[in-house]
Amino acid sequence: MPEPLNIGLAGLGNVGAGVVKLLARNADLIARRAGRPITITAVSARDRNRDRGADLSSYTWVDDAAELSQRDDVDVVVELVGGSDGPALTLARHTLQAGKSFVTANKAMLAHHGLDLAQLAETKGAALKYEAAVAGGIPVIKALSEGMAANSINRVYGLLNGTCNYILTRMETERLDFAVVLAEAQAAGYAESDPSFDIDGIDTAHKLSILAALAFGARIDFAAVAVQGIRAVELADIDQAAALGFRIKLVGLAEHDGATLFQRVHPALVPHGHPLAAASGALNAVAAEGDFVGRLFFQGRGAGEGPTASAVVADLIDIARGIQGPAFGMPVASLTALPPADAATRRGRYYLRLTVADRPGVLAELTAALRDHGVSIESLLQRGHSSAGDALVVMVTHTATEAQVLASLAQMERSDAVTDAPVMMHILDF
Amino acid sequence: MPEPLNIGLAGLGNVGAGVVKLLARNADLIARRAGRPITITAVSARDRNRDRGADLSSYTWVDDAAELSQRDDVDVVVELVGGSDGPALTLARHTLQAGKSFVTANKAMLAHHGLDLAQLAETKGAALKYEAAVAGGIPVIKALSEGMAANSINRVYGLLNGTCNYILTRMETERLDFAVVLAEAQAAGYAESDPSFDIDGIDTAHKLSILAALAFGARIDFAAVAVQGIRAVELADIDQAAALGFRIKLVGLAEHDGATLFQRVHPALVPHGHPLAAASGALNAVAAEGDFVGRLFFQGRGAGEGPTASAVVADLIDIARGIQGPAFGMPVASLTALPPADAATRRGRYYLRLTVADRPGVLAELTAALRDHGVSIESLLQRGHSSAGDALVVMVTHTATEAQVLASLAQMERSDAVTDAPVMMHILDF
Repeated sequence: MPEPLNIGLAGLGNVGAGVVKLLARNADLIARRAGRPITITAVSARDRNRDRGADLSSYTWVDDAAELSQRDDVDVVVELVGGSDGPALTLARHTLQAGKSFVTANKAMLAHHGLDLAQLAETKGAALKYEAAVAGGIPVIKALSEGMAANSINRVYGLLNGTCNYILTRMETERLDFAVVLAEAQAAGYAESDPSFDIDGIDTAHKLSILAALAFGARIDFAAVAVQGIRAVELADIDQAAALGFRIKLVGLAEHDGATLFQRVHPALVPHGHPLAAASGALNAVAAEGDFVGRLFFQGRGAGEGPTASAVVADLIDIARGIQGPAFGMPVASLTALPPADAATRRGRYYLRLTVADRPGVLAELTAALRDHGVSIESLLQRGHSSAGDALVVMVTHTATEAQVLASLAQMERSDAVTDAPVMMHILDF
Repeated sequence: MPEPLNIGLAGLGNVGAGVVKLLARNADLIARRAGRPITITAVSARDRNRDRGADLSSYTWVDDAAELSQRDDVDVVVELVGGSDGPALTLARHTLQAGKSFVTANKAMLAHHGLDLAQLAETKGAALKYEAAVAGGIPVIKALSEGMAANSINRVYGLLNGTCNYILTRMETERLDFAVVLAEAQAAGYAESDPSFDIDGIDTAHKLSILAALAFGARIDFAAVAVQGIRAVELADIDQAAALGFRIKLVGLAEHDGATLFQRVHPALVPHGHPLAAASGALNAVAAEGDFVGRLFFQGRGAGEGPTASAVVADLIDIARGIQGPAFGMPVASLTALPPADAATRRGRYYLRLTVADRPGVLAELTAALRDHGVSIESLLQRGHSSAGDALVVMVTHTATEAQVLASLAQMERSDAVTDAPVMMHILDF
């Protein structure tokens, strides 16, 4: 039997414990596929005494995770600590600096420091791999960087946060308000006690910036992602969208027109026939469009112990097989710095929801605001009332630029008939 | 700039011309991703003078494809000739024997000779790659052999033939009979003049046997695939299935229970909520279930110039990058010879359609046949008439073994009230 690939594992939460269990349970199969055994030699975590449901007795325990990078019995470090900076980043730098390969599920760290780490990995001849960082068990990093490598990719988008998808799905299927579902999800452990990273779209933005870099051969530009989460989505919006043939999803969308990079996270109306609309519950889904392959669609579990461990160990098998390309599909020096696209000129259809005083003349005011900016209306519904007794007006526009629609909304907001901030959502028409 | 990877291309039909166009149009991008240029140096096809919409003037023309394998200016041979034996197989053997890598879209050849070729590739240290052979542009070979490599996979299934999916979709959406849609598809060039490989399920069986080998670490056993095509599917079946909440699809299904291998191609009833049901028209779709990752789902275009060329060139980029694992995810000697599963003991729900004389007592006879073999009925519909004026009876059973249902059908067929061969279809309940 050839020499094993020796792993140092930092972080023993759910995912870390999942990696331990997977490598034990599928050890023979993995050795057949990888050509050699993959063996954990040393582990590190905050609390040595917690029961993790996995036998850790045969591994060396290391108090300081950074020590893993310096051990002779560690070939590859797996980082499942999390956090964009701090111990995770220190460990990444030490590991790559030592010429060892580094596998991580840490999207926040990659969004902020991915290019620096990729450069360091290249310089040192080590692998930096992160299949688990985006869309959990779905091998979308591999699909973009290898499976679609022959294509010029112009668009990648998807549902990248299981918590948001779970909340929106439960709101729809059980007719519950956002706050109720969020509280229940927190109580059940599906959502963090500080849910902001998930529901405000930041986690999706981290992942989107990584996908965009891979898909377009671009330098990561997390700061340029426009981010809007799902806090403002009301059950009334979900109902109106359904009546119009759409389902509301938190969509991360990146486009490359050959010159600029567009990146946005936002709740969007997805037509019922679109495969993204059918990805319910905590599922993740990614679509990518290439010039030769057309649209590919991938769906699976985006988080949790099993799927994430599956992705981490796939990276380890690649390393054991000697597969070790540049982290972002091409050398860092070949990645292009793309200027952000001007969102104002984007054309599309829009869903608008306004809360207005229930009195004559209001609809005339609203429709005039659209007319004044050249926006025509595809459908208009006046239905239901807010809790304060105001009327809800929902409109879908014909295709218009974002600037036109925003100008119309600004005009509407100046009306004293409009009693709450208007909600605008994009319609996914591709 | 590093040395190019030099390609000899055999076969200049649609897909071959697509490869030529892709390598020209995306040359710069591919060189960035592959780390070096990928260049066609020599080509071969039957007719030198046909206009293929691509400029071939800079390539050396070779009359005998097998010569490509012997040329010093060819590193990798791409075979797009087709056919399980004959010139394609000769070329494959010559190429691998010469220690050169071989890329093919030829599922028939792989289903019949894949293990021999993989063994030869291993012995000679060459790559045998075939992403384009299954599901066209969907990188499912890579997903199974690399992306899901950490998992014990117990099931892989999907829609692997675009022609069948196109025909079934048009039958449903335009309410046309099978024969009408087939004739139109042939006239439009979507179906072959001899459509048997597609509509009788043989092409799907070729692909399924390859997926099963990859997913389960098993030796290819094409001969053990039970194959039933779509000729017997009537519009009445599609209608009844729709009324019951299902869509009929030609499904290739392989399962591994740890000991045996089940492989079947058959028209099956897919529930409307299942992602396979939503893959319409000529799309392909594949689902695979792993013990840690759960179910992954992939969808995209399964045939045609662009998607197939995308998959062929992805293989070339892998080779240019030095990624060259064993063809079936592990060395041939590690693949297990799995005995075929006994279908008779499989449990599931079944759709049954019977053509019967329209007279009293017939339903009692049919239901008695099910009762006699312990099969209970979930729903029973009597609707419509055949062209001969006989009545159509549709039933869905509760869960039963296949042996029980087949015995019931055999008993029914002995009744003189049953005027045509019963149709049985499986219901996809996973």
